Amino acid sequence: MLTMLSENRCFGGAHRRYGHRSSVLDCHMVFAIYLPPQALAGQRVPVLYWLSGLTCNDENFMQKAGAQRIAAELGIAIVSPDTSPRGEGVPGDPEGKWDFGLGAGFYLNATQAPWSTHYRMHDYVVTELPQLIEASLPVTKSRSISGHSMGGHGALVCALRNPGRYRSVSAFSPICHPTISPWGEKAFSRYLGPDRALWETWDTCALLASGCAQMPLLVDQGTADSFISTQLMPEQLERAAAEAKCPLTLRRQAGYDHSYHFIATFIEEHMRHHARALLA
Amino acid sequence: MLTMLSENRCFGGAHRRYGHRSSVLDCHMVFAIYLPPQALAGQRVPVLYWLSGLTCNDENFMQKAGAQRIAAELGIAIVSPDTSPRGEGVPGDPEGKWDFGLGAGFYLNATQAPWSTHYRMHDYVVTELPQLIEASLPVTKSRSISGHSMGGHGALVCALRNPGRYRSVSAFSPICHPTISPWGEKAFSRYLGPDRALWETWDTCALLASGCAQMPLLVDQGTADSFISTQLMPEQLERAAAEAKCPLTLRRQAGYDHSYHFIATFIEEHMRHHARALLA
Repeated sequence: MLTMLSENRCFGGAHRRYGHRSSVLDCHMVFAIYLPPQALAGQRVPVLYWLSGLTCNDENFMQKAGAQRIAAELGIAIVSPDTSPRGEGVPGDPEGKWDFGLGAGFYLNATQAPWSTHYRMHDYVVTELPQLIEASLPVTKSRSISGHSMGGHGALVCALRNPGRYRSVSAFSPICHPTISPWGEKAFSRYLGPDRALWETWDTCALLASGCAQMPLLVDQGTADSFISTQLMPEQLERAAAEAKCPLTLRRQAGYDHSYHFIATFIEEHMRHHARALLA
Repeated sequence: MLTMLSENRCFGGAHRRYGHRSSVLDCHMVFAIYLPPQALAGQRVPVLYWLSGLTCNDENFMQKAGAQRIAAELGIAIVSPDTSPRGEGVPGDPEGKWDFGLGAGFYLNATQAPWSTHYRMHDYVVTELPQLIEASLPVTKSRSISGHSMGGHGALVCALRNPGRYRSVSAFSPICHPTISPWGEKAFSRYLGPDRALWETWDTCALLASGCAQMPLLVDQGTADSFISTQLMPEQLERAAAEAKCPLTLRRQAGYDHSYHFIATFIEEHMRHHARALLA
């Protein structure tokens, strides 16, 4: 059951925010969807899922990336979920930091109390949310996935863990190897407990090394990104992809940082990458 | 003296925020500028000034409108000033509302205490800021101006009051006749006092009726804009332009509202409108 919270006309299509009860997350959630003109005219369109980074909600990408122009041209819907469970009763970071808990679900299924009750963003993004959307809105079951930073990690992990579910995947500035990044270690140790073997099932580099089903990866990384060496580690992804013989297109974009100015610059190329798979 | 506060690479150019002391406003101000790749390569480029609406600062347009892509292609800089004086000692709305004072300078020169000390946004936007920018950054003296809502009013008034200063003007959802709109009446009665003859020198419709120097006006207005009949009154602009025989292109865009989703949809057409004048 989706409740439409708002609607804005945008590039001939509609940007909408919907609220719904999530049984997977055991809380009320809000997501945004851009429906291109083709969908409003009665055609079912494929969907690009966009996973945002730390501190974001459904709004950041829709307001700042400028992707609707291209989605309207191509006839692709875009779904932007929130980045964590929300609301009363959902525990946040005990220290009140922004890199864990609310706004920082890391797109995994937590196993440790008190997080395991609500923090199941992987199942929400991969299964529950698409089911809801495909049952209620004019979209097909053709899906692609992309994201930024924590959401770039999420997009790569969702695609690698679920062969056949996504037609294509890409990422901006992903956390490539969270099991050895400070953000990842903080989140994984709390959500997943001390067992590092379990952590590896949520880590792009480890998934590639384990011989998971592969698909071509498109990744853009700004060279002036202040998190590149401490948190994101694209060289680890390059190494893991090479060892696994996984086709990786990693583009180091000179001078670009971690902001939406970077995403806005290259989102058109990602959209066209996904369109080639979604509209084939 | 400009101090660069931040820089983000964006579409091959640079989005920068600068701080500076404004003598006109008697306070410290921040503005944003997008310099296209041509400017970074050493070429002087013309400038589009963008005036934002109520509650905004220099950031809203730069984050949400998606104009940098087109500015980069065309070789035009964009300057986004703040919408009022700011900082300690600058008085805001005594009632704490968002439609007067801070974030609501209305792009005029106040005559009434305590506002007249700082609230001189017209002189800041038309004179002081361009002088600073033209002295310090790789831009020419070719200027155009546009804006949204309160900033649409500001753009039209700046252009009409200063013949020859701007090559072209456009507006999204402008407050067309502020002397009879509640936002305008509240602001003008405080900034300008009770003399309605003075108000008319800051009102697009009244300026047109007074036989001011004219220029072609491009205005986009969404038909689903919740402020259209109470505050914006595009029909008043149509009437005034017709009576003054001023060339007006007023486009009513079906289903669009007052948000940046509307601006993002049509900003490319406005940019190309200004480019025809700036690059002629």
